[in-house]
Amino acid sequence: MRELYPALANKTYFNYGGQGPLPTPALEAITASWQRIQELGPFTTDVWPFIEQETARVRRQLAALCGVGPHRLALTENVTSGCVLPLWGLPWQAGDALLISDCEHPGVVAACLELARRHGLSIHTLPVLQLCRNTPADRLEAAVLEALEQRLTPHTRLVALSHLLWNSGSVMPIAAVADRLQQHPRQPWLLVDAAQSMGSLPVEEAAAAADVYAFTGHKWCCGPEGLGGVALSERLLEQAQPTLIGWRSLRQEGSAGSSFHQDARRFEVATSCVPLCSGLACSLQLLTDAGSPEQRLQQLQARSSQLWEGLQSLPSAHTLLQEPPAAGLVSFTLNGHPTAEVVEQLGAQGIWIRRLDDPDCLRACTHITTTPEEVEALLAALRSLN
Amino acid sequence: MRELYPALANKTYFNYGGQGPLPTPALEAITASWQRIQELGPFTTDVWPFIEQETARVRRQLAALCGVGPHRLALTENVTSGCVLPLWGLPWQAGDALLISDCEHPGVVAACLELARRHGLSIHTLPVLQLCRNTPADRLEAAVLEALEQRLTPHTRLVALSHLLWNSGSVMPIAAVADRLQQHPRQPWLLVDAAQSMGSLPVEEAAAAADVYAFTGHKWCCGPEGLGGVALSERLLEQAQPTLIGWRSLRQEGSAGSSFHQDARRFEVATSCVPLCSGLACSLQLLTDAGSPEQRLQQLQARSSQLWEGLQSLPSAHTLLQEPPAAGLVSFTLNGHPTAEVVEQLGAQGIWIRRLDDPDCLRACTHITTTPEEVEALLAALRSLN
Repeated sequence: MRELYPALANKTYFNYGGQGPLPTPALEAITASWQRIQELGPFTTDVWPFIEQETARVRRQLAALCGVGPHRLALTENVTSGCVLPLWGLPWQAGDALLISDCEHPGVVAACLELARRHGLSIHTLPVLQLCRNTPADRLEAAVLEALEQRLTPHTRLVALSHLLWNSGSVMPIAAVADRLQQHPRQPWLLVDAAQSMGSLPVEEAAAAADVYAFTGHKWCCGPEGLGGVALSERLLEQAQPTLIGWRSLRQEGSAGSSFHQDARRFEVATSCVPLCSGLACSLQLLTDAGSPEQRLQQLQARSSQLWEGLQSLPSAHTLLQEPPAAGLVSFTLNGHPTAEVVEQLGAQGIWIRRLDDPDCLRACTHITTTPEEVEALLAALRSLN
Repeated sequence: MRELYPALANKTYFNYGGQGPLPTPALEAITASWQRIQELGPFTTDVWPFIEQETARVRRQLAALCGVGPHRLALTENVTSGCVLPLWGLPWQAGDALLISDCEHPGVVAACLELARRHGLSIHTLPVLQLCRNTPADRLEAAVLEALEQRLTPHTRLVALSHLLWNSGSVMPIAAVADRLQQHPRQPWLLVDAAQSMGSLPVEEAAAAADVYAFTGHKWCCGPEGLGGVALSERLLEQAQPTLIGWRSLRQEGSAGSSFHQDARRFEVATSCVPLCSGLACSLQLLTDAGSPEQRLQQLQARSSQLWEGLQSLPSAHTLLQEPPAAGLVSFTLNGHPTAEVVEQLGAQGIWIRRLDDPDCLRACTHITTTPEEVEALLAALRSLN
């Protein structure tokens, strides 16, 4: 399988959570799609069925992975668009509160800050990072629910919580959180950043339970950059007006006065790059062929456990988590080695991990394409640093 | 030059205003860009300079075409995003009025309707379609300015007017309109949909005069679908907050509390498809190599005039304009032939034009790749309809 990914041929790669490698068949599918569009179109009656086919196919695939009907799945340019676009059209009232975990991506937090500024909302923090660091895995769900309980107020109108935390690598109990929010008098919306979970975990249960479950195709799904999606709940589709509006949002694209699509397409905008749909469809098929989501999680978890265990025997290393991670993200620090320097020194050897700002740490990701030898090579390189 | 465009090899193509044909070197540049990203990255310190280079190059090219500094140019997914995104972050006051021409694209109009609904704005129409149909070209500028004069009120806060009208094919006096708006006590913002002008007309003067000059690369520039841009005025950059916010909007991408970029990047969002930048850069270079914007306009206008003249001698044909068009869009109707049927019948012969809803008409576009023989073929096909 590794032979299909040219990015893996000349390096030891652990940045799947930043961007996944694009398999050659997906690049070929992208190119073939462009050639077909030129042959049939690019703007002719002959090309519309092809464009509809390529778009509908990837929508169906992504919706199936999310366990929702295709009518609940909007295609987006990236995970941020999926997270943020639906928020701007919700019926906010001044005084509403947003409860945002302390492990959310800065892009999403910045968007929420601006949303709050304009609508007079307040922002509260749901502290989960320390829980992840200190709580045994089998008690984490209860601890997160308890923290949620303490921070919910009668004004809480939205909770933002990633499915797989991008810094600690912990899996959040999204379905249980959704259940709890349904008991709240205001039934707060649940926004889930699925940047790290989609393609690495089984996501059906969480995606179907969230109001906004936004992901990208270019990380763990190994699709091309520039295409993602968002699964939206039925109630959100009813309650949220589109904000970034274009011909794809409209039920009749030629008529500005026509209503918006009732389904998730109301959050799609205008012309986007159809060949990316062909590429992502191919990448997703390759993953599906490699095993069920559960099987693939087991595989990548075997490698992250190997790395986590290896780090325990490295005297200078401290893993963020006290136990092997639930998925493929391993975060750690090295005493006496500034994180930026470690990234640089490993990079010079063709070994690629990244650093994070908050908390200041190193992060290595393992996917189903990661080999035991790669993990050993990383551990050896860490051992021999200066 | 035509040999570079596979879409033109097997058809007689007049839908440049819908989507331009992608030249083979641009597709090769896209593929090479993806291969280079896989070789260097996709997420490594080694790949960042390449990504910055490809993004900065197309930003510089587009800014130069617009006659503005690169700091005023934001890259967008499509023309709608460029038109609409900056609007949501402007300091609207209830009662402000939007003055929108009656020739704007339904996507932009729908976005303005929703903006007005949420902020309590009123919408007024600037009627230009009839002026285009009835006014000699040398008096059109004065007529448009007069219509503007009549519709401006003390509450007018924004004027939306396309540079090259997508239905009639008339060129609007954008710089003169901008001058007039500067005299208005409230100095209304000028939003210009440049979907049809960018790549077909010299746009420097208009783009530098507008507050929002939004275009796509996939129509007259013959770039890949999914990448466009918007030139923003200095005052708009000061006055408008970003709305769809992601890591690319932030001055420090790792910090949600950091301020937004002061320059146009504040309206960029998150990960997009970098290989599209490589492709558009190539397509733009091919156009530049073919001649100056003025020379290219002359070329495509020679073909649109040929078509317009030919239509005059066709008894059933009525052109929307009384004179040959100022650019490459020719709109017309055929007595006794419903527009949808004409499109279908021509398409069956491999000749591609499109129909528009408002006004119900046919539209054929000529670009610098259009040959006199193609125009004759279209005229012959129209002549022999039933």
